[in-house]
Amino acid sequence: MSRFFSSRYAALEPYTPGEQPRDMQYVKLNTNESPFPPSLKAQEKAAQTLERLRLYSDPECTELVRTIAKRYGIGTDEVLFSNGSDEILDFAFMAYCDREHPAVFPDITYGFYPVFAEINCISSRQIPLKEDFSLDPEDYKEAGGTIFIANPNAPTGIALTKEQIGQILLDNPDNVVVIDEAYVDFGAESCVPLIHSHENLLVIQTFSKSRSLAGARLGFAVGNRELIRDLNTIKYSFNPYNVNSMTMAAGIGALEDEEYTVQNCRIIQKNREYTVNELKKLGFSMTDSLANFIFVQHPDISGEELYRKLKENGVLIRHFTKERISNYNRITIGTRQQMDILLDRIRQILQ
Amino acid sequence: MSRFFSSRYAALEPYTPGEQPRDMQYVKLNTNESPFPPSLKAQEKAAQTLERLRLYSDPECTELVRTIAKRYGIGTDEVLFSNGSDEILDFAFMAYCDREHPAVFPDITYGFYPVFAEINCISSRQIPLKEDFSLDPEDYKEAGGTIFIANPNAPTGIALTKEQIGQILLDNPDNVVVIDEAYVDFGAESCVPLIHSHENLLVIQTFSKSRSLAGARLGFAVGNRELIRDLNTIKYSFNPYNVNSMTMAAGIGALEDEEYTVQNCRIIQKNREYTVNELKKLGFSMTDSLANFIFVQHPDISGEELYRKLKENGVLIRHFTKERISNYNRITIGTRQQMDILLDRIRQILQ
Repeated sequence: MSRFFSSRYAALEPYTPGEQPRDMQYVKLNTNESPFPPSLKAQEKAAQTLERLRLYSDPECTELVRTIAKRYGIGTDEVLFSNGSDEILDFAFMAYCDREHPAVFPDITYGFYPVFAEINCISSRQIPLKEDFSLDPEDYKEAGGTIFIANPNAPTGIALTKEQIGQILLDNPDNVVVIDEAYVDFGAESCVPLIHSHENLLVIQTFSKSRSLAGARLGFAVGNRELIRDLNTIKYSFNPYNVNSMTMAAGIGALEDEEYTVQNCRIIQKNREYTVNELKKLGFSMTDSLANFIFVQHPDISGEELYRKLKENGVLIRHFTKERISNYNRITIGTRQQMDILLDRIRQILQ
Repeated sequence: MSRFFSSRYAALEPYTPGEQPRDMQYVKLNTNESPFPPSLKAQEKAAQTLERLRLYSDPECTELVRTIAKRYGIGTDEVLFSNGSDEILDFAFMAYCDREHPAVFPDITYGFYPVFAEINCISSRQIPLKEDFSLDPEDYKEAGGTIFIANPNAPTGIALTKEQIGQILLDNPDNVVVIDEAYVDFGAESCVPLIHSHENLLVIQTFSKSRSLAGARLGFAVGNRELIRDLNTIKYSFNPYNVNSMTMAAGIGALEDEEYTVQNCRIIQKNREYTVNELKKLGFSMTDSLANFIFVQHPDISGEELYRKLKENGVLIRHFTKERISNYNRITIGTRQQMDILLDRIRQILQ
C-alpha cells in the first residue's frame, strides 16, 4: 500500500474471487455461473441500446423496475437495482450496521460478509452453523445486530424454509434481516412475499446465476418502501448511475423471457440430482444443496488434493482454505456433458 | 427513512443528478453528454460480448488495461477502471481521507465532492474560488488535507495548466492530490504525464463525455502503482466485478478509434467558440471554458428565469441554486444545429 493509504483500512483483507485462469480452456465449475447463454431477448434488448450510449443511463431504472414489480407483484417503490448484488449488500451494511448494530451472520457463509463489515468499520459476530452445516433459527433469537443470511447458504447450498425465516424476522423486530437469495431459483423458497408482513426484511437477488447474466452485473433488493428509500439515499450519495443502459435492457429482456429461466433452472436441478447420485456411488458425501452447486467431501482424498488434481485434468472447482470446510469442495452444476467430464475425471483420480 | 437507518447517515444529502424528463423531447443541453453516438467500433465490440454474458466479467479488466496503458504510455499497474468515474472518486475519498486527512476542494466545483465526504464521514474544507471563479494555486499551499480539483473545473469550465497543478503537487508532498479530468479532452492539458514525477498525484478520467459512453459507465484512475494498489484494495473489498463485460469491450473499441474521439472533440470546441461569440453579441458574459459546456449569465434575465423559459421552449440547460452561482447557467455544447436552436430560443426570450 502507499504511504497515503488511510490507516482505517490498513488491515483490510479483500475478498478473493474464484480464479479465472487464462492459460487454458477449463471445464469451469468454480464460480457458479450458468452453463447456458443469456436469453436471446436479453441479448437483443441490450444490443438495441448500443447506439444510444452517449446518454446517461436512467438512474431510477424506471422500465426495469416496472417490469420486475409486475413480475413479483410488488410496488415500484419496493425494489432497487444495483451493479451486481455485491454492491447492494454493501449498501445494506452501510445503511443498517454501525457501532450499535453489529453485523451478525453464520461462521460458514458467503466470504464477502466479513469484508463488507471491515470496509465499513463495523464489528461483526459470527454464529457457528451446526455440526452438519445446517442453520438453527434458535441461534438467531434476539441476535443483537443486523442479520445477514444467504438462503440457500453458500457454499453449503442448505436452505431455510420461509417459515423459519419468518421466525427469525419475528425474533428480531428491531433489526433488519437481510436474506441474500443469490441461489434461490434452483429449488429453495423465496422470502419476497414476506416483505409486506415484515418491515425488517430486505431480500437481495441477482441476475448472475439463473438468468445467465453474471458478466452484465445486475442485482436488486426488495423490501418495504422505507428500506428501499434508505438504500436509495446511499446509492444517490455514491453512484446514482450505478446500472448501465445495456445491463438494464438485458435485465428487462431476461424478465420477459421467464420461461427460458425456469427451464434452465429445471435442467440444473436435474443435473444436480444426477451428479449427487453418481458422486455418492463413488463414496462422496455432501450437504443437501438447493443451489446450482454442491458441497462435497470424500473420505480418501482431501479437498485440496481433489481440487488440485481436477485442475491438472482441466476441471476447475472451488476449494476454500477455511479450516472448518477445508476438506470440502464446491462444485458448480453445469450441463450434463460437463458433469460427465467431471465424474469421469474424478473416477480416474480415485482409481 | 426507515427507523432502522443508521444515524451515521441521518443528515446525508444525496447528489442531485441533472433532470432526465420523459414528458417530451428536449434539446438536451443539461448533463454534458456528447451529441455524437459512440464509435461504431465500441458498439461492435460490446455487441460481441452479449452471448458470453453468462460468465463473470474480468475483475482485472486485463485487455482494457493493456489497451489504455499503451495509449497513455503508462504501466498496466498504473491504471484502474471503475463503474463510472463517480465510483473511483468515492474510492479515493475512502482511501485517502480520514480524521487526520480532511478533503479539501474549491467552494464552486463538482457538487458530488461534499457528498462523498459526507458518506465517508470525513470532514471537508472548501476553499473559495476568486471573484472571477478562477482557482489560485497559492490558496492550496500546504492545504492540510487530500485535495480534489476538477480540471477543467465544473461548472465553470476554467482550467489550470499542468505547471500550476505541478506546483500544487509540490506544495502538498504528504497529501494525495486528485485531479478530476472528466472534461479534459475539450482543450485543457492532462496531468497524466506527471504521475511518474509526483507520487501524490491521482488523475481520474471518464469515457462519458469525449467518448460518448455515458450510458455504459466507465471511468478510470491513473497514478503510480502504490496508489493504484490502494484503490484495488478498496475495489476488491467492495465490488470486484465492478465493470461489466459489455462496457469493458466498448471501452476497448473506443480507445481503438481514437481518431473519432479527437474529431468529435474538435467539433465541440468549434461549436463552443461559435456559441460563445453569438451569446456575447446578445449581451451574455461567461467564464473562459475549456470544457464541453459553457457557464453564462446575462444582465437582464436571472439564471433561474432563463432556465425555466428555455425549458418551456423545449431546451434543457442546467441551473444551480447555490447562491454564488445562482445567476448562471451551465449549457452543454452540442451539435451546431442544437446550438442554433438554443440561440434562436434565447433571442426570442430576450426580445
